[in-house]
Amino acid sequence: MNSQSRLNRSKSILPILDWLPKYRRELLGGDINAGIIVTIVLIPQAMAYAMLAGLPPQIGLYSCVLPITLYAVFGSSRTLAVGPVGLVSLIVGSTIIEMDLLGQQQALAVAVTLACMSGVLLLLMRILRLGSVINFISHPVLSGFTSAAAVLIILSQLKHLLGLETPRTVHLPEAFTNITAHLSEINLTTAILGVSSIGVMLFLRSDYLRKLGELKLSTRALDIISRTGPLIIVSSGIIIVWWLALDKNANVNIVGAIPAGLPSLSIPSIDIALVRELFPTAFIIATVGYLESVSVAKALATQKRQKIDADQELLAHGVSNLGASISGGFPTAGGFGRSMVNYDSGANTPMASIITAILMSVALLFLTPLFYFLPHSILAAIIIVSVSALIDYRAFKHAWLYDKADALALLVTFIMVLTLGVEVGILTGACLSIGIYLHRSSKPHVAVIGRVGNSEHFRNIDRFEVKTCQHVIAMRIDENLYFSNTNFLEDTIINLIAENQQARHLVIVCSSVNMIDASALEALDTIVDRLRHAGVTVHLAEIKGPVMDRLKNSPFLQRLQPGQVFLSTHEAMKRLGCS
Amino acid sequence: MNSQSRLNRSKSILPILDWLPKYRRELLGGDINAGIIVTIVLIPQAMAYAMLAGLPPQIGLYSCVLPITLYAVFGSSRTLAVGPVGLVSLIVGSTIIEMDLLGQQQALAVAVTLACMSGVLLLLMRILRLGSVINFISHPVLSGFTSAAAVLIILSQLKHLLGLETPRTVHLPEAFTNITAHLSEINLTTAILGVSSIGVMLFLRSDYLRKLGELKLSTRALDIISRTGPLIIVSSGIIIVWWLALDKNANVNIVGAIPAGLPSLSIPSIDIALVRELFPTAFIIATVGYLESVSVAKALATQKRQKIDADQELLAHGVSNLGASISGGFPTAGGFGRSMVNYDSGANTPMASIITAILMSVALLFLTPLFYFLPHSILAAIIIVSVSALIDYRAFKHAWLYDKADALALLVTFIMVLTLGVEVGILTGACLSIGIYLHRSSKPHVAVIGRVGNSEHFRNIDRFEVKTCQHVIAMRIDENLYFSNTNFLEDTIINLIAENQQARHLVIVCSSVNMIDASALEALDTIVDRLRHAGVTVHLAEIKGPVMDRLKNSPFLQRLQPGQVFLSTHEAMKRLGCS
Repeated sequence: MNSQSRLNRSKSILPILDWLPKYRRELLGGDINAGIIVTIVLIPQAMAYAMLAGLPPQIGLYSCVLPITLYAVFGSSRTLAVGPVGLVSLIVGSTIIEMDLLGQQQALAVAVTLACMSGVLLLLMRILRLGSVINFISHPVLSGFTSAAAVLIILSQLKHLLGLETPRTVHLPEAFTNITAHLSEINLTTAILGVSSIGVMLFLRSDYLRKLGELKLSTRALDIISRTGPLIIVSSGIIIVWWLALDKNANVNIVGAIPAGLPSLSIPSIDIALVRELFPTAFIIATVGYLESVSVAKALATQKRQKIDADQELLAHGVSNLGASISGGFPTAGGFGRSMVNYDSGANTPMASIITAILMSVALLFLTPLFYFLPHSILAAIIIVSVSALIDYRAFKHAWLYDKADALALLVTFIMVLTLGVEVGILTGACLSIGIYLHRSSKPHVAVIGRVGNSEHFRNIDRFEVKTCQHVIAMRIDENLYFSNTNFLEDTIINLIAENQQARHLVIVCSSVNMIDASALEALDTIVDRLRHAGVTVHLAEIKGPVMDRLKNSPFLQRLQPGQVFLSTHEAMKRLGCS
Repeated sequence: MNSQSRLNRSKSILPILDWLPKYRRELLGGDINAGIIVTIVLIPQAMAYAMLAGLPPQIGLYSCVLPITLYAVFGSSRTLAVGPVGLVSLIVGSTIIEMDLLGQQQALAVAVTLACMSGVLLLLMRILRLGSVINFISHPVLSGFTSAAAVLIILSQLKHLLGLETPRTVHLPEAFTNITAHLSEINLTTAILGVSSIGVMLFLRSDYLRKLGELKLSTRALDIISRTGPLIIVSSGIIIVWWLALDKNANVNIVGAIPAGLPSLSIPSIDIALVRELFPTAFIIATVGYLESVSVAKALATQKRQKIDADQELLAHGVSNLGASISGGFPTAGGFGRSMVNYDSGANTPMASIITAILMSVALLFLTPLFYFLPHSILAAIIIVSVSALIDYRAFKHAWLYDKADALALLVTFIMVLTLGVEVGILTGACLSIGIYLHRSSKPHVAVIGRVGNSEHFRNIDRFEVKTCQHVIAMRIDENLYFSNTNFLEDTIINLIAENQQARHLVIVCSSVNMIDASALEALDTIVDRLRHAGVTVHLAEIKGPVMDRLKNSPFLQRLQPGQVFLSTHEAMKRLGCS
């Protein structure tokens, strides 16, 4: 390998080698601006998502230093902002609840193990080139899952928002009864702090402010104000609680002491029994986190005509999660809202993320005492506002209009996630999508075709006025031939021949067949053989290049004889005496 | 509903109403002949398969009266011979072993419950129109399963063949060590009876006899002799054991007393806990039994240009299994060998099966004492000879030549069935087939196409000398667009646009797209939107009729504007100024 190709190889594994040497000073302004704004958004979010996952607030902050830095080195996206995200935090949290762990220490071990396992799984997917596993989750299923997860997240935060002392749960009916049963025990001061925070954030995002803006402020200033909503409510919340000593006078739950200092790095000690138990969860975290990250990265890249390398993203998120694990954090991914903030604030390169990571370290070293009086209800308000955007009512309506079966998959996933939990829900949904697809392609569109006038064109005899012959049947199959439809294929052909007792030739037109698998090949072989006994010769026409290449590797074409392979239907019909 | 359509409806649910009124006397000869020969084959087979399933011999005989009669009434095949079959008996047997049941009574309860459950499952599949579930098992997986099951069956019979007293097992390594460890305890008389029976049956089927036949006997007489092999060895075995009192003198295991009389009919008492435990097994029995039956029925029907109605077969086998259950039998299916015998012996209609059922009743009423001295080793010999035909070495070779991934699925299923049992094996295999298909269609063939000379034809720019324009890219996708390849689609298009910075229009050519699901529609929508921000307009061309019909139900075509839908690629390129 010469030095040039070695360099290119390094660049493709370490994209930082590509952008850093070319870094120009004029890019720095945007990157610094974005780095600062993302940090402001990230600090409260990271603590809030740690609370959602059932972990102490500093764990959320720990998950922001090394993972962000590693993604900046390995990631193929220029503007993706990684860190704790809602869906993944929910899954971590519900696992911790369901495992019925005794103490904080065990919960931390589960979180670190999950980060390590999802990192390893992503790297394995990269090495084994199995990244396409993520493709098995269809959009409607993902949409049902996301909406249901958002509902669960909001429900799980209501107790913090209202200051209730109910047990944690991940099941909708239980969460519901818990809250209604304890509604009288509401902590009014906590609830006012939480609900008014939601009000402030919604106001800052609303069109009201925009209308105000038309009078005095520039759009850019407005954008910055709406983004700093969490900062405003966090700082005013801290000041109010501290000033009025609400933690003592009104029993408002506060974050309390956060240990200062950077996370200490250590190889996590992994318990094999725990690994086995957590395997399905880790797999779902890896898949869901990667899916969210890649779709956000793609959305941002396309706007600037940049590339996203899906394989490189597996590597980057794998390394990033391992980084979270060794720095005592929980699984991370690329978040939608935060990445949009990064992009909109002018991030040009991953340098913005490196600046965010540095600022997060500064915060961990010096600013943690500031958060002592931060009330839980304000963190809950931040989570609720940020995940409420994930509830997508219209997805069901759109799916229903276009495709009832897909809409059904969405609805079933939504209901299953709410009632039986995230894992069962998403697995059921994925199986359902696959089942629907296989079922649908198991009964493909098949048309008996005939000649249009005296032309060389052939069309469906049921839709067009066409000419046919009694002794030759031409049949077009509009689907790949594979195991799911071999039975249908056999049935259709048997019935076709039974209905046309004069037929002596059958031409199977493969213009829409992109693949013939081993099952279908065997079925074709059987059909050829059986029809031979029934006095009918089978021919093929319009086979595509790649399909033909494979057929040549099998004895099928010999066994087809005296049946032939024709380039066009026209040629087949002419040669078989039907012109 | 008028009386004519009511009659047609009845005929489609009860095919006997179609063939019986038209029954002509000249059909009777063939039917009687076939009925007698099938009975001769069936009696020893039914007892042997009951032994394989770990049940008393009469249970096998019970499973031949009502199920056969019911299939004759409801079945759409004219010549399928139902009854106990090897694969299903093996699954019943291995379930009974694995459940570690204490007595015969419990084993019987499991068998009857399985028959009832698979009957109900088949009827449910009929009602819910879910017959296509069986399509999810690909041919290579089925082939791997069948071969491995045959190996397991043969291994399970070796102890009976050689007169060993080893515990029953369904796992290959255990069965192997059991036999080798006890090989010294072989019962020589039993082994000689068994092995010589295999020799006689193989000789009667061999070409040797055929060569002899060229000298003296007609082919027809030879066919009958080869088919009566089991009858010959059973009767001579009984006579030898009785004459020499081998059961007492040489400790040869014999069938012993079989209770005479027809099975008493009763609604099986079903235990809910047992039903839940047996659910996966019952599902596999229903699926595998139905698969075998339908493929045999199709093979026979095609030769006479008769029809097979897959939905009606669900009903017929469902009813037939319920019949087995209420007459105290175990699950049944259409057997390959026996149906071939039925067909070759001249069966014209299901009347042949009705005759078989009557003769089986006669045997149960009067002939059971005759089988008292029948040695187990001869039953084992019959099973071994009949299932050895199921081991298909060439299937792997064929699959390997044509498609390495399918061959791998076959091999994995084979190994999993042998080592982990039939259920885990076939489920793994089915998941593997589905995974392979989804993986394959997740990275479809995509070609950027250009104009061939001045023609209206467009071809892959990598394979042909074609003309292109800088500002218009035409891309053909050779696959259905669905959730498994939406990510690939997005990636491909992002990269294509990133590589062609001058492009202003993208034409997606859908001539090979037979389906666009909701995920793919959403992905297309996202692509259109993102490319609009990047200054590229997306157009579609050559959309198929059924795909277009669905697209019209969605807001996509409006959102595509100013992008257009063109009938042909030629038209698209001309209108976009690239001609």
